[in-house]
Amino acid sequence: VYGKLVTYDGLERFEWLHSYSKIINPKGKYDSRGVFMTFENYNVEVRDRVKCVTGLDGVPMSTQWESQGYYYPTQIAQFGLSHYSKNLTEPEPHRRIIEDGEKVKQDWIIPQGSFISRNYDLETNTHVLKYASPETSTSGILLNLDHVLSFVLKIDLNINNNGSITIAMQNREKKDSYYYIHYTTTNNVLQSMNNHIYYGIGSTNNQWRRLTRDLFVDLQKGINFSNEKGKIKKLSRSKLKLVKIILNGSGRIDNLTLSTSEHIEQFYDSARWFVANQNLTSGGWPNPVRRKVSSGMAALEPGWYSAMGQGHAISVLARAYYHSGDEKYLGAAVRGLKPFRVSSHKGGVVANFMDKFVWYEEYPTTPSSFILNGFIYSLIGLYDLKSIATGKDAEEAEELFDQGMLSLKNMLTLFDTGYGTTYDLRHFSLRTAPNIARWDYHSTHINQLLLLSTIDNDQLFSTTAERWIGYMNGKKAAHN
Amino acid sequence: VYGKLVTYDGLERFEWLHSYSKIINPKGKYDSRGVFMTFENYNVEVRDRVKCVTGLDGVPMSTQWESQGYYYPTQIAQFGLSHYSKNLTEPEPHRRIIEDGEKVKQDWIIPQGSFISRNYDLETNTHVLKYASPETSTSGILLNLDHVLSFVLKIDLNINNNGSITIAMQNREKKDSYYYIHYTTTNNVLQSMNNHIYYGIGSTNNQWRRLTRDLFVDLQKGINFSNEKGKIKKLSRSKLKLVKIILNGSGRIDNLTLSTSEHIEQFYDSARWFVANQNLTSGGWPNPVRRKVSSGMAALEPGWYSAMGQGHAISVLARAYYHSGDEKYLGAAVRGLKPFRVSSHKGGVVANFMDKFVWYEEYPTTPSSFILNGFIYSLIGLYDLKSIATGKDAEEAEELFDQGMLSLKNMLTLFDTGYGTTYDLRHFSLRTAPNIARWDYHSTHINQLLLLSTIDNDQLFSTTAERWIGYMNGKKAAHN
Repeated sequence: VYGKLVTYDGLERFEWLHSYSKIINPKGKYDSRGVFMTFENYNVEVRDRVKCVTGLDGVPMSTQWESQGYYYPTQIAQFGLSHYSKNLTEPEPHRRIIEDGEKVKQDWIIPQGSFISRNYDLETNTHVLKYASPETSTSGILLNLDHVLSFVLKIDLNINNNGSITIAMQNREKKDSYYYIHYTTTNNVLQSMNNHIYYGIGSTNNQWRRLTRDLFVDLQKGINFSNEKGKIKKLSRSKLKLVKIILNGSGRIDNLTLSTSEHIEQFYDSARWFVANQNLTSGGWPNPVRRKVSSGMAALEPGWYSAMGQGHAISVLARAYYHSGDEKYLGAAVRGLKPFRVSSHKGGVVANFMDKFVWYEEYPTTPSSFILNGFIYSLIGLYDLKSIATGKDAEEAEELFDQGMLSLKNMLTLFDTGYGTTYDLRHFSLRTAPNIARWDYHSTHINQLLLLSTIDNDQLFSTTAERWIGYMNGKKAAHN
Repeated sequence: VYGKLVTYDGLERFEWLHSYSKIINPKGKYDSRGVFMTFENYNVEVRDRVKCVTGLDGVPMSTQWESQGYYYPTQIAQFGLSHYSKNLTEPEPHRRIIEDGEKVKQDWIIPQGSFISRNYDLETNTHVLKYASPETSTSGILLNLDHVLSFVLKIDLNINNNGSITIAMQNREKKDSYYYIHYTTTNNVLQSMNNHIYYGIGSTNNQWRRLTRDLFVDLQKGINFSNEKGKIKKLSRSKLKLVKIILNGSGRIDNLTLSTSEHIEQFYDSARWFVANQNLTSGGWPNPVRRKVSSGMAALEPGWYSAMGQGHAISVLARAYYHSGDEKYLGAAVRGLKPFRVSSHKGGVVANFMDKFVWYEEYPTTPSSFILNGFIYSLIGLYDLKSIATGKDAEEAEELFDQGMLSLKNMLTLFDTGYGTTYDLRHFSLRTAPNIARWDYHSTHINQLLLLSTIDNDQLFSTTAERWIGYMNGKKAAHN
């Protein structure tokens, strides 16, 4: 059911496509080089609160807490981890090369005054398609296609400013219903007008880059963006057909491909974002929005760090390092540990429960919130780095991981209500009612414990997970 | 519904006669000289797990954790506090003096060889009834009565060994059905044979003492004791008639009275027990039974102290001091503070939560159990002493009270499950499922908070009580 859009309230973060309460038993010991928990089931970019996947970075832009849209590191990491995981669990994609300038060539329709040529490119050391179309051209260089179902576009490009690549999609049931998705060399994230949707891919700087676009997602997001709020029009993948690719302006392209998926490409879009957007001094990935977690807690001003965001980013970067061998990913991951050593009240992410147990805060609130799932995700990030890094890097991560696990083992059952779990310990911090985790968070807690049970011998994790699964089946803790 | 017997499981302690979940809103600020919380509704001695009220001390003997019976300080204090409270809330009892040797005299039937006389007694400075009946007498000195409903006997006595006082009760619906309750100068707590029930009142040592007996309770307990286990025969007060009082042996009696209640007498039986049975070195009232609170916790070996027992005892003693002005009660109460300064792992009652907050343990278990209601009862005891004592005594109690209140305010909401409360924090200590408080304990928690809300300005208590009352009405804390 990929592509299914679900209506969320403003605070939801995780999506269960088949069920809001799906427990997935680990098949074996958790492997930091492998699938991230159950994230092969996540489709981050289709969530309503994702404005779009930006053309500038290829990562989701959130509208969860600010309608204009902003980069939310946690979400970007989940996007990366879900694609990394899908790459391991899904069958090989159907992939069709449309044009590579050498072995696969198309009959592009070239209007008068435009041209294409296929030349050996000294930068890429391969043949590429070179093209130019005058600004006065109204049609552009056109390729007609009759392509269905595999709508993930991958293209290497080096195009000049004021150029664009346009994809025309047709509704197969309404022959006169066309959508045009324009990828333009601007910094406008998303614009939409009638059936025309514009994604800025930034100035190109005369450098080759790879653009990976899920056209179905881009189309859906563009249509939603142009519609009035609340009126979500859901598209059906099977009713769409890709009918045209149009090149305007001038530049070079290569390896134009249409696939059912390009998970590793999208994973690296996420990993690169974390390398490019880290504060090198603090090691943090700032959350650029104001966030008030609860009345009674001071609002977090833009720039705060999240232990969950840091941990997730580290999980992405550790995998990117493992997968690519590129040290830049390792370096960013290790820098990402820094906020784990700074108090959540002083710009870092570490809180203390009762001055005794460290807690890595998903939101570095005052007073502390002690959110369970975010804490465990941060621990998984630390575990990933300790597992994939070596030497001092691994030791640093391990020390933070071990401290956190000690806290978790001591505090875990404080989240047990006897019929479910609390989302956090705000009832302790604020002296209020507990904030009960709804079932999908409860199932996240369980999936996290099941993961931990494969990497730690303490029976606590499997015992507790079993009990918490029981709560989902209507069991309750005994009363005295 | 006084006298109603309810079947309990082994661990129940509090009885709600009208409802298992009765919330009683305080009428005003809690007064340590007044009613103890809602204890005017308690009838400790009728509980199944009370073997009887002993003739030796006039206090209940528990069979909760040991079938032979033992003195359970917590229960003895609740007995005292309930009678103290009833004395303040119930209407004046109907009281009939049967014989005072002076103004009210009866026509005792004196068999041959026996005698009675009414003389001025130099010890009591009043006229008393002196009697003697030879050992060979088969009938004793007899008083026929036709007395209904007010079955609490009060008598001052100074009788010689091998004597006894016997009360004959008749079932009004079965004229030939008699019960004989014998109060004998032995140390046998309770014996029973056919329709004869024997309560030892101890050797008398030629000293005047006052004996207060609820004959209906004594009869009911005696019948239950003689029956096979599980076959509880319930008596009806209204069907009984007191038909005879029989004196055997020799001695002096005075102020023989039958009343609907003698609450203050029974309260002082409790208070005297605490003065007489305190370990003067440790200040504790030992619990003489082995107690295993939970699997995973080490068993408590006989002799352990309970913060709840200590606090309850202090509540009794503070009231006895206030009521009588007798310093011996104050002295015992102040000594009772000592275990609050000794670790629960070293023979005292004070545990620490997270090395940060003191917790006065109802059961000084290892690991700590953090039972909520017992802790709050101990705080009320400390409050009672701080309120009634003065100077250094009050300061000592206040310091312990303030420390405990700080803990309570910080930890209270950890007991909130969002639909009820936990009885303790064993889920933290043992890393297990929470031990959910059943509704009568939950209502005890609420009544305790309502009491605290009248003596502390922190809105936490009333806010939390209100929320917890909501849980009883089916409300639940919100999920996220």
